[in-house]
Amino acid sequence: MNVNKKYVYLYEEGSREMVELLGGKGAGLAEMHNLGLNVPEGFTIITEACRDFLKNGKFPEGMLEQVMETLHKVEERSGKKFGDASNPLLVSVRSGAPVSMPGMMDTILNVGLNDNTVRGLASKTSDERFALDSYRRLIQMFGSVVMALPKAEFEHTLEEIKRKNSLRYDSELNPERLRELIGLYHGVYSKHGKVFPQDPVKQLTLSMEAVFRSWNSDRAVAYREISNIPDTMGTAISVVSMVFGNMGNDSATGVAFTRDPNTGDRRLFAEYLTNAQGEDVVSGSRTPRSIADMEKELPDAYRTLVDYVGKLEDHYRDMMDIEFTVEKGRLYLLQTRVGKRTARASVKIAVDLVNEGKIDRREAVLRITPETLNITLHPQLRKDPKNVPAGKGLAASPGAAIGEIVFSSDRAVELSKQKRKLILVRPETTADDVRGMSCSEGFLTQKGGMTSHAAVVARAMGKPAVVGAEMIRVDASAKTMKVNGLEFREGDIITVDGTAGEFYKGKLELESSSNSPEVSKLLEFADDFRRLGVRANANTPEEAVMARLHGAEGIGLARTERMFLGNDRIQIMRNMIMSRSQKERKEHLDRLLPMQVSDFTEFFRSMAGFPVIIRLLDPPLHEFLPEKEQIMTEIFDIRLRTADRPEGKDRERLAELTDLLKTVRILEEFNPMLGFRGCRVGIVFPEIYDMQTKAILQAALKVVEEGKDILPEIMIPLVGHSNELKKIRSRLEDVARQFLGSRKLKYKFGTMVEIPRACVTADEIAKHADFFSFGTNDLTQMTFGYSRDDAEGKFLANYVEEGILPEDPFSSVDQEGVGELMKMAVSRGRSTNRDLEIGICGEQGGDPKTIEFCHRIGLDYVSASPFRIPIARLAAARAALENAPLARSK
Amino acid sequence: MNVNKKYVYLYEEGSREMVELLGGKGAGLAEMHNLGLNVPEGFTIITEACRDFLKNGKFPEGMLEQVMETLHKVEERSGKKFGDASNPLLVSVRSGAPVSMPGMMDTILNVGLNDNTVRGLASKTSDERFALDSYRRLIQMFGSVVMALPKAEFEHTLEEIKRKNSLRYDSELNPERLRELIGLYHGVYSKHGKVFPQDPVKQLTLSMEAVFRSWNSDRAVAYREISNIPDTMGTAISVVSMVFGNMGNDSATGVAFTRDPNTGDRRLFAEYLTNAQGEDVVSGSRTPRSIADMEKELPDAYRTLVDYVGKLEDHYRDMMDIEFTVEKGRLYLLQTRVGKRTARASVKIAVDLVNEGKIDRREAVLRITPETLNITLHPQLRKDPKNVPAGKGLAASPGAAIGEIVFSSDRAVELSKQKRKLILVRPETTADDVRGMSCSEGFLTQKGGMTSHAAVVARAMGKPAVVGAEMIRVDASAKTMKVNGLEFREGDIITVDGTAGEFYKGKLELESSSNSPEVSKLLEFADDFRRLGVRANANTPEEAVMARLHGAEGIGLARTERMFLGNDRIQIMRNMIMSRSQKERKEHLDRLLPMQVSDFTEFFRSMAGFPVIIRLLDPPLHEFLPEKEQIMTEIFDIRLRTADRPEGKDRERLAELTDLLKTVRILEEFNPMLGFRGCRVGIVFPEIYDMQTKAILQAALKVVEEGKDILPEIMIPLVGHSNELKKIRSRLEDVARQFLGSRKLKYKFGTMVEIPRACVTADEIAKHADFFSFGTNDLTQMTFGYSRDDAEGKFLANYVEEGILPEDPFSSVDQEGVGELMKMAVSRGRSTNRDLEIGICGEQGGDPKTIEFCHRIGLDYVSASPFRIPIARLAAARAALENAPLARSK
Repeated sequence: MNVNKKYVYLYEEGSREMVELLGGKGAGLAEMHNLGLNVPEGFTIITEACRDFLKNGKFPEGMLEQVMETLHKVEERSGKKFGDASNPLLVSVRSGAPVSMPGMMDTILNVGLNDNTVRGLASKTSDERFALDSYRRLIQMFGSVVMALPKAEFEHTLEEIKRKNSLRYDSELNPERLRELIGLYHGVYSKHGKVFPQDPVKQLTLSMEAVFRSWNSDRAVAYREISNIPDTMGTAISVVSMVFGNMGNDSATGVAFTRDPNTGDRRLFAEYLTNAQGEDVVSGSRTPRSIADMEKELPDAYRTLVDYVGKLEDHYRDMMDIEFTVEKGRLYLLQTRVGKRTARASVKIAVDLVNEGKIDRREAVLRITPETLNITLHPQLRKDPKNVPAGKGLAASPGAAIGEIVFSSDRAVELSKQKRKLILVRPETTADDVRGMSCSEGFLTQKGGMTSHAAVVARAMGKPAVVGAEMIRVDASAKTMKVNGLEFREGDIITVDGTAGEFYKGKLELESSSNSPEVSKLLEFADDFRRLGVRANANTPEEAVMARLHGAEGIGLARTERMFLGNDRIQIMRNMIMSRSQKERKEHLDRLLPMQVSDFTEFFRSMAGFPVIIRLLDPPLHEFLPEKEQIMTEIFDIRLRTADRPEGKDRERLAELTDLLKTVRILEEFNPMLGFRGCRVGIVFPEIYDMQTKAILQAALKVVEEGKDILPEIMIPLVGHSNELKKIRSRLEDVARQFLGSRKLKYKFGTMVEIPRACVTADEIAKHADFFSFGTNDLTQMTFGYSRDDAEGKFLANYVEEGILPEDPFSSVDQEGVGELMKMAVSRGRSTNRDLEIGICGEQGGDPKTIEFCHRIGLDYVSASPFRIPIARLAAARAALENAPLARSK
Repeated sequence: MNVNKKYVYLYEEGSREMVELLGGKGAGLAEMHNLGLNVPEGFTIITEACRDFLKNGKFPEGMLEQVMETLHKVEERSGKKFGDASNPLLVSVRSGAPVSMPGMMDTILNVGLNDNTVRGLASKTSDERFALDSYRRLIQMFGSVVMALPKAEFEHTLEEIKRKNSLRYDSELNPERLRELIGLYHGVYSKHGKVFPQDPVKQLTLSMEAVFRSWNSDRAVAYREISNIPDTMGTAISVVSMVFGNMGNDSATGVAFTRDPNTGDRRLFAEYLTNAQGEDVVSGSRTPRSIADMEKELPDAYRTLVDYVGKLEDHYRDMMDIEFTVEKGRLYLLQTRVGKRTARASVKIAVDLVNEGKIDRREAVLRITPETLNITLHPQLRKDPKNVPAGKGLAASPGAAIGEIVFSSDRAVELSKQKRKLILVRPETTADDVRGMSCSEGFLTQKGGMTSHAAVVARAMGKPAVVGAEMIRVDASAKTMKVNGLEFREGDIITVDGTAGEFYKGKLELESSSNSPEVSKLLEFADDFRRLGVRANANTPEEAVMARLHGAEGIGLARTERMFLGNDRIQIMRNMIMSRSQKERKEHLDRLLPMQVSDFTEFFRSMAGFPVIIRLLDPPLHEFLPEKEQIMTEIFDIRLRTADRPEGKDRERLAELTDLLKTVRILEEFNPMLGFRGCRVGIVFPEIYDMQTKAILQAALKVVEEGKDILPEIMIPLVGHSNELKKIRSRLEDVARQFLGSRKLKYKFGTMVEIPRACVTADEIAKHADFFSFGTNDLTQMTFGYSRDDAEGKFLANYVEEGILPEDPFSSVDQEGVGELMKMAVSRGRSTNRDLEIGICGEQGGDPKTIEFCHRIGLDYVSASPFRIPIARLAAARAALENAPLARSK
C-alpha cells in the first residue's frame, strides 16, 4: 500500500471531471467553489477509500491523518475550531457516489456538537433553543444511523414529550424540554448498552465509517440492481461545515431545478422551507412552499439563487438540480448535479438547448435515450368531462396508469409475480420502497412535494405518480385509503393521472400521447444522422397510415393472411382448403382475388412513393379451420342431447362437423411451427401464390395508373433451401410476365430469412433474391429451439429470473446466437449478390439494442410496429453516432 | 474442330486404362488382345464421337474416313473383305459405355450381309441354312433397332411360318423357309415405307448412328438415373468381326465368371449354349447349359477358356465377367469386364484376394462399399421344415423378400407410391423393367438363367430374385401366375427366397443374416484403418449386447425415458408428473430410483471396458400421459352411456379422467418439439436429474465393485445456452460429490448438441462440457425448421421428388446447412476446450456419407444403431483412406 496516496481533496483540488474519484456531490462542490459560487468550507474523501474500507474493514493507512490535516485547514479558513467549546466548527458527513442514488445512503449532520460545544454554539448564535435542537438532532441521527438504534424509539420519545406538554410542532419545544429530551435520548442509548460519544473526532470517525457502510445497505444494493449501477463503485464522503437553515425566519433550506423538470419549461423550479434543515424538504414530511414566496421573504438570497442558477446552467450546458441553504439571509449551495426530469422534459430541454445555441443537434440526439422517448409516447388519460376525480395531489410524474391498489412494497413484489397490474399507495415513500415501486404501474402518496422521494423515483422510472394528495388518509396496516367518504381497499382498481395530478375510482380509458413538436424536432435531428432506413410492420391500411404519420419510409412487412379472417372471407378460405381438386381450389381462389386486390390497392395508396413488402401466405392451413377440441365438443353435445339419435338439422350439422373433423385431422400437426406452412404450402399448392401475386400486381398497376409511385416487393416466407426460392420465383415471374404483358411495372422478389439454414446458406439463396428480411421471431424460435407460445408460459420467465438468459430473446435479439447467424447471412448473402437489400421485420425490429446491432452488421433498414417508429428513428441515429458501421463489400 | 482428331483405335492402340475413351468393352478387347488372348479382329470408336454426334446430329468430321481406313486394316488381317460377294467380312456393331449398362444400349450383329454376300457366306461355310439364318437375323435386328420397325411384327411373321409348317424351333427352318421368311421380312419394311439397305457401308453407317442414339433411349436414361451415371458420358462403339457360335454343334456361345458371382467361391462359373448366338444366352429365352458339359463336348475350347480365365483374373486382380464364342471349336473372347456379383460374393472375393496375395487389405476395404456390406446383412428366411415352397427356380440373387405380387413394371411404379411392398413377377425381364424392379422388394421370373437380365439386375440392386422358375406360368395380361394347381393374383402375398431359389405362398418369418467369417475379416481390416470410434445407440441392455457383438466400442446414446414406459413404471411416472409439490414429486422419484439403478447396472455390465453415454430425461412430460383426444372420448362415452348421470364406478372414473384432462391441458403445447423438454425440465424440476444422476453413479459403482472397468458419461439434452449446462452441471456435480463421499469413480458430464444456437455458441458451452454429441435428428429439425413427424407425410417426399432437396436430410446429414453448423460447433468447441470429445448420435450416424463427413470435420466417434455398426466400421475406414482429416488443434 502506498502511504503517500492522496485520499482527501480540498474543493480547489477537484473539478466536475473527477466524479469517479470524488463522487457526484464532491465534484459538484468543487466545481461550484471554482466557479466562485458560495459553498460552505469542506473537503472530500475519495471513493477508493470506501472500497478499501469495505474490503479490509478499516480505513486505508494515512487517510485519517489526511482528514485531520485538511480539517485544520477548514478550521483556519472558517475561523472556527472543531470541538472548541466557545466557537465550535460543526460539519456534515455526506455520502456521494459517482452516480446519483438519491436518499439511498446516509448523511450525518451537526457532527462536532457535545455537552460542551453545544453551549458555545448557544452563546455564539445567541439562540439556546437552536443549539439544543441541533444537538438533539445529532444525537437522534447518530443513534439511528451510526449506532443502528431503533429510529422509532427516538421518534416515540419526541412524540411523548410533545403530547405531555400538549405541543404540536417540534419547534415549540423550549430549551428546558429540549434538555429533558436530550436526557431521554441518552437513555435510549444506554437501554441498548451504548453511549453517545462526546469526542468530536470520534463522532467524525464513526460517522465516516457509517457512511461507507451504507454503500452496502439493503436499499442501496437494491437500487443499484434496478439501476444497473456496478457494486464496485463505492461512495465518496464530503465533510462540509454546517450552515443552518433552521436559525430563524431569515434562514431556509430548499431545492431548485434550473428548468421545470416536469415539463422542461425554462423557468426556475424550486421549493423551500423557512427555518428548516434539508431533511425536512427531501423527506416530504413538511410540504414546502413555492419559490415565488421566497422572492418576497428573502429577496437577497432569491436574487443570488437566480444568478447562480444561470451560471450553473451555462456552465454545465444542461438543466441542473441544486440544494441550497439560507443562513441568516446568506445563500449557500450545498450540492449540484444534472437534474432528473421527466421524459417529456428531457426532450423539450434538449431541443430548447439546441435552439438556445448551448448544445448541437448531435448532442441533443445523444442525450435522449430511446427509453426516454418511449416514455413520452406513453399513454395518457383520454379527456372526458364526465369523469370526476376521486382526489387530487401534485402532478409529480406524467402519464396515466391503471391497476389494483396495493399498500406495501412487499405485497407489490409478491402480487407482481402473478403479472397483476398494481398501483402502490403509501403515506409517503422511502428508499425501502424502491423494489415495490419497480413492480408497480404508478404511485399515489399522501405526503411529499414535487421533489420528494416518490416524485423523483417516479420520474426516473418513467411511471405516473400523484404525490402530496393530502386529502387522502392512507392506513397501510389496515390496508385502506379514505377520501371524501369513499373507502378503497387492496385490490380495488384505480386510475392515476400523473400528468394532471389526479386519481379516479375504477378503470378509465387511456390514449396514446400525440407527439409534441419537440419530439418531432428531435426526430428530425435524428433523421439527419441515421444510416438505417425505418419501415413499418402493418397489416391493415389504417396501420399503414399511422406508420406514415410516425415517419415510416415504407412497409417492411404486410401479412396477407389476416386479410382472410373477415367473416365473408374465412368461409371461402375454408372451402378452398377443403377442395378435393386443383380445379375446385382455383375456383375459390378466384373469388378471393378481387378482395385481395382491393386490400392491396388501399395499402399501396397509403404508402405512395415508398416500397411495400407483402408477404405471401405463411401460416399453416389449419389455422383457418376451427379447433379440433371445439368440433369434438359440438359433436358430443349433439350426440348427448339427442341420445345419439340425431334428426333433421342436428343430423345435417353432425355430418358437416364430421367432415370438418376429418379435414382438421388430416391437417393437424405435432409441431405446426415447423410444419406445412410458408413456402412449403406455396410449393405444394402453387395456385395460392399465383393468385396473391396477381392480386399484388393488379393493385400496384391500378395505383400507378392513378399517378402514384409504388414499389411492391413480394416476400416468400420460410425459405430454408435456395431451391425453394428458385422454384417459386421462377413460377411467379412467369405469372407476372403473363399478367403484365406489355405493361411495365417495377417489382421485386425476396425472402424472409427466418430459418437457421437460410442464414448458413445465404450465399445460395441470395442468388435468387432481390431482398432479405430477417424474421427474427421465427429465427429466434428455431435457433433456440423455443416455441414462443409454449416457452413464455412454461420456462422462459424462470430462465430470465435465474439469469440463464440475460433477457427475453423475443424482445431484444440474442446477439450471441441469433445475431451471429444474422451476421453470417449478411456477409454470405452479399458475397453473391452485392445489391441485396437487407432488413429486419421481426418484433425486435423496434428494440433499440436490436437496432444498434442491425446498424453494426450493416442492414439497410429496420421495420417496426407503427407506434415504435419514432423510437426506431432515434435509436438508428444514436447507433450511427455511436458506431462505425461494419465495412460493406459494396 | 480438329480434323486430325483420332476417333478410331485399333486394339493395339488401346488398353484397360482407356475406359473413358474406349468404353468398357473397347478397353477390355484392347487389353485382352494385348495379353495375347484370342479376340476377333476389330476396332473401337471413342465416346467423344458419340457426344459429338448427339450434339450435332452427325458424326464428327473425319470419323467416317478413319472408320473405313481401319476397316481396311481389319480386312487385311482377316483376309476377308467387307461387302465381298465371295469371302465377305461380317461385323458386329457394339455399344460400350465407360460404365457397364448391361443390355441398355443396342448392338447389331452380322452387318455386311446382303443378297450377294449371303451367297458368299453360304459357299464359304458350306452351310446355306446358317448363312440365310444369319441374314434374316440381320434384317430383323436392323429393322427393329436401326429402322425402329415394330419388333413384334418380325416375331409374329417368324411364329406364323413356324406354325404353318408345324415347326417348334427356329433351327428347324430350312433354307427354303428362310428365303420365304426373308421375303416376308422385306415386306415388313415396305409396309412401313422402308427398305433394307443392300450397301454394307450404309448398313454400317446407319448401325453406328443407331448405337449412338441408343445412349439416349428411355431405358438407358432410366438406368443411368437409378445408377447415378452422368448423362454426359456417351458410349463408344466397337466394330468387331463376326464369329459364329451358331455354326453347328462344334460352335457355342457363353458367359463366364472367374469366380461364383453368387457366393464368391473360387470356381469357374459359366453357362453356354451350343449352336447359338450371344443374344440367346443373355435374353434368357433359352435356358443355358452348365459349364461342366462343355468340358466333355468342347474340350479344347474348354481348356483354353480355363487358361484365359486364370490369366484375366491375375491380370485384373479381380473377378472377371467374360463373353465368349466358340466357332468351329476355336474359342474367341468377345468381352471382359470386372464381374458383377452379389454383395456376399463381393466381400468373400475381396477377402480371398487378400489371402491369395493378389490385393492388399487397403484395397479390399476400398472395394467394398458400405451399401454392399449392408446388403450382406439383409434378412434371410428363417429355416423351418414346416414351410413347403410353392415353387422353385434358380437362386439368382440372395436374401429373402415379402410382398404383394405385381405383374408389370408400370403397375409396380404406381403401387409403390402407396408405400406397398411388392414382388415383381414376370415371364422374363428386359431393360424396360428396370424402373419397376427398382420399386420392388424382389423378383420371380419364369424364364432365364443365372446370367439373365433379371438375375444380373437383381444382384446389382441387392434384391432377392428367383429366376427360371419354369414350373410357373405367368400371364401378365390376365394378371395371374399358376403353379401346381395354385393360382396367384395381383395383391397376393408371397415370400421369395433368393438364397435358396424358392418361393412361398404368404408371409414367412425372416431373420437377420449372421455375419459371415469374411465379413468379420473385412471389418478387422477396416478397424486398422479407421480413425473414428464406433459406438452404438442402444436403449436396452439387450441392444447393448447386440451392439457389442457387432463391434461397438461403447454406447453413444442410451435414452433413459424408454425405461419409464414399463407397465409398473408409467403409473409412478404419471404420479410424479401430477405431483402438487416438490416433496410429493421427490417421493415418486425415490420409487423410480432403484428401477433406474437396475437398468443402468445391466447396461454397464454389458459394456464393461467401454464408455457409456446416458442421456438424462429428454421428452416433454406430456408424452407420459394419455392423449387428450383419447381422454375426451372416454369422458364423452361415459356421459353418453349414462345419459350424463354416472353412478358408482363410472362416476369415479369420470372424476379421475377429468383430473387427468386438466393436467394434460396444462402440459399441452403448440409445438412440443420446441417446448418444455430436455434440460428445460431439468432446470425447472431439478430433482428429476438429481435422481437419474444418483442412479447412474450407484449402478456404475456396483459394476466397478464387480471388478469391471466402466466410464459413465452423463449427457444433458437440449442445451441452447451455456448457462443451462453450467447451472445443471454444477448442481449435479454437487449431487455426485455428496453421493460418492470418499469413494472414487470416473465420470464425465457433457451435452447433446442439437440446437442451432448450441453450434453457434459452442465455444461458451464447451467450457462446461467434457463431451459433445451431435443430435442430428433435432439439429436437422431446427436448422431446416422441419418437424419430422409432420414433414414426412406432408411435403418432404414432394421436395425430394421435385429435386428441391437432393435427399432426405433425416437419412443423411445435410452437409451444406446442418453440416456447416456442425463444423462451426467443432471448431468453436475445441477453441475453448482442446480435450473436448465429440461424436454424433443422430440416426444419420449410421449413414456412410454422414460418417465420411464426420471423419472430415474431425469428430472422435460416430454412434449408430446396433445393426448399422458393421457399416459404420467400414465407412469410417473408407473415409480415413479416402480423406485426410482436417487439422486438429489438439
